[in-house]
Amino acid sequence: MVLTMQEFEFISWLQAQHVLTRPDIRVGPGDDAAVVMFAGKPLLVCKDLLTEEVDFRLVEAGEYAVGRKAMAVNLSDIAAMGGRPLWALLGIVAPPGTNLTELYRGAMECAAAHGAVIVGGDTNGWSSGLVLSVTVIGEPIREAVLRSGARPGDWLMLTGPVGGSIFGRHLNPTPRLREVVTLLDHVQPHAMIDISDGLGQDLSHLCTASGCGVVVEAERVPIHPDAVRLSNQTGRTPLDHALTDGEDFELLFAVRPGDGSALLEQQPIPLWHIGTFTTPDHGLLLCNEGTTAPLPRRGWQHRFGDGQ
Amino acid sequence: MVLTMQEFEFISWLQAQHVLTRPDIRVGPGDDAAVVMFAGKPLLVCKDLLTEEVDFRLVEAGEYAVGRKAMAVNLSDIAAMGGRPLWALLGIVAPPGTNLTELYRGAMECAAAHGAVIVGGDTNGWSSGLVLSVTVIGEPIREAVLRSGARPGDWLMLTGPVGGSIFGRHLNPTPRLREVVTLLDHVQPHAMIDISDGLGQDLSHLCTASGCGVVVEAERVPIHPDAVRLSNQTGRTPLDHALTDGEDFELLFAVRPGDGSALLEQQPIPLWHIGTFTTPDHGLLLCNEGTTAPLPRRGWQHRFGDGQ
Repeated sequence: MVLTMQEFEFISWLQAQHVLTRPDIRVGPGDDAAVVMFAGKPLLVCKDLLTEEVDFRLVEAGEYAVGRKAMAVNLSDIAAMGGRPLWALLGIVAPPGTNLTELYRGAMECAAAHGAVIVGGDTNGWSSGLVLSVTVIGEPIREAVLRSGARPGDWLMLTGPVGGSIFGRHLNPTPRLREVVTLLDHVQPHAMIDISDGLGQDLSHLCTASGCGVVVEAERVPIHPDAVRLSNQTGRTPLDHALTDGEDFELLFAVRPGDGSALLEQQPIPLWHIGTFTTPDHGLLLCNEGTTAPLPRRGWQHRFGDGQ
Repeated sequence: MVLTMQEFEFISWLQAQHVLTRPDIRVGPGDDAAVVMFAGKPLLVCKDLLTEEVDFRLVEAGEYAVGRKAMAVNLSDIAAMGGRPLWALLGIVAPPGTNLTELYRGAMECAAAHGAVIVGGDTNGWSSGLVLSVTVIGEPIREAVLRSGARPGDWLMLTGPVGGSIFGRHLNPTPRLREVVTLLDHVQPHAMIDISDGLGQDLSHLCTASGCGVVVEAERVPIHPDAVRLSNQTGRTPLDHALTDGEDFELLFAVRPGDGSALLEQQPIPLWHIGTFTTPDHGLLLCNEGTTAPLPRRGWQHRFGDGQ
């Protein structure tokens, strides 16, 4: 899931292909899911691949957890679009000896916990590492929430503490689907993204898509205890881990200030107000103990092997 | 795409999970595509994975052809359901140095030639072989044509000559989407499948799903010149190659005898009548020069490496 520079360039090239000239395609590559129209209603469609030694270590995690993670990260993409999942496809490329039924069970039970059903897929054998390809199809609960709708002045909000996911949460993420249902009962966010690459990195995607800058207030960022624990090992600050670790799968979203303060008061779901969107000329800033610096954007890449 | 015994057992296990208890899921795992209901209309959803050294040799084929094949085999699944494709997702797991834009171009141009658009996907890097995962979403032109509707007495028909695809056609298959549009203007087939694993193998899937037997008449099977050429190298008969090679991506379907003879007379598309469905107790038979024997079902596995 962590993209290299080559992959970012590839996505830019893709977007430049101007393939999206059909009225049935509302949102193409570049958001958490595509939005297409069918029978007069919008569908959400997303696909995320997981590869051994890049996204997981099979011997440590086991097949069940790997299947579950592959499904969860895709469900998280549907959550980030303000959607509910309907159906999934599971593609498996596996070396001999892989426990296919455990893989499938992990994915199936994770889907079922969120109202989705695996309706198909493909299973191939080969002698290299395990690859999982999941596709999820869903529908917006109300309107699809894109990355591109944040406006200067909007509040930046976050659904949970971040950092240190490598201690286990990265393998068992909770897609914030239930939280999104509740959130959308209260407000329609202007923009939303899930944190896969890291808060700074994913926030930069959101700002780029929206044509905004942002100021994050360091003391407002909820730091997960795992980030503190990790900082004891790495010597980096807990805040740095919170901003750059990734694979938290919390939601980061933009709302009108009035909506934001009403949300904070009611707390229908756990919510933090961590910053404010600005005009793009301000860039992406971190305000920490009275000083302002560029927001760290690097993602801490959960890559175990020699993947790119 | 060629399944091993382990994979067939896995699919049986899957089907036994009884996951398909929702009214929106009309057809789950086990057909060429799933059929799900959205906004009162049926959608077709399929996913096929291609892996290096199993489905293609990248150094021989090049990225463009590999991307094109990955899309084509999925479009062929939509054709086999009596459908038209709408949208596709392209997942790529690639080693360093892979020409991603050529891969994408191959897939995109193949999709565009058949009215489909790539709306999203995922691109990951790693150090092992190239894996492509394509998802295509489409809709039935009329009713979805399943594998399960053939009846004893139906004619078995085929859309083109088969065998010897390894000489190049396996890399550049033509999904029979245009043919299906024309075919469905004339008749509603009872059952249909595309030939990926081999005529005998895929016909056995169709017979199993339909609860039928079949008699294939050897002299009626259209044999591709490539099958003759290949038989000169292998010493096997051209017929044997036609029945077992696979990756022809022609359509095999069941129609009422009256519809079949009308089709043969009109030939709205190239069509061959190659046999007749029977009651299941007859099994799968090949009638050749007056003698009858079991239909060869093995697929000639287009596997180049040591994949399973």
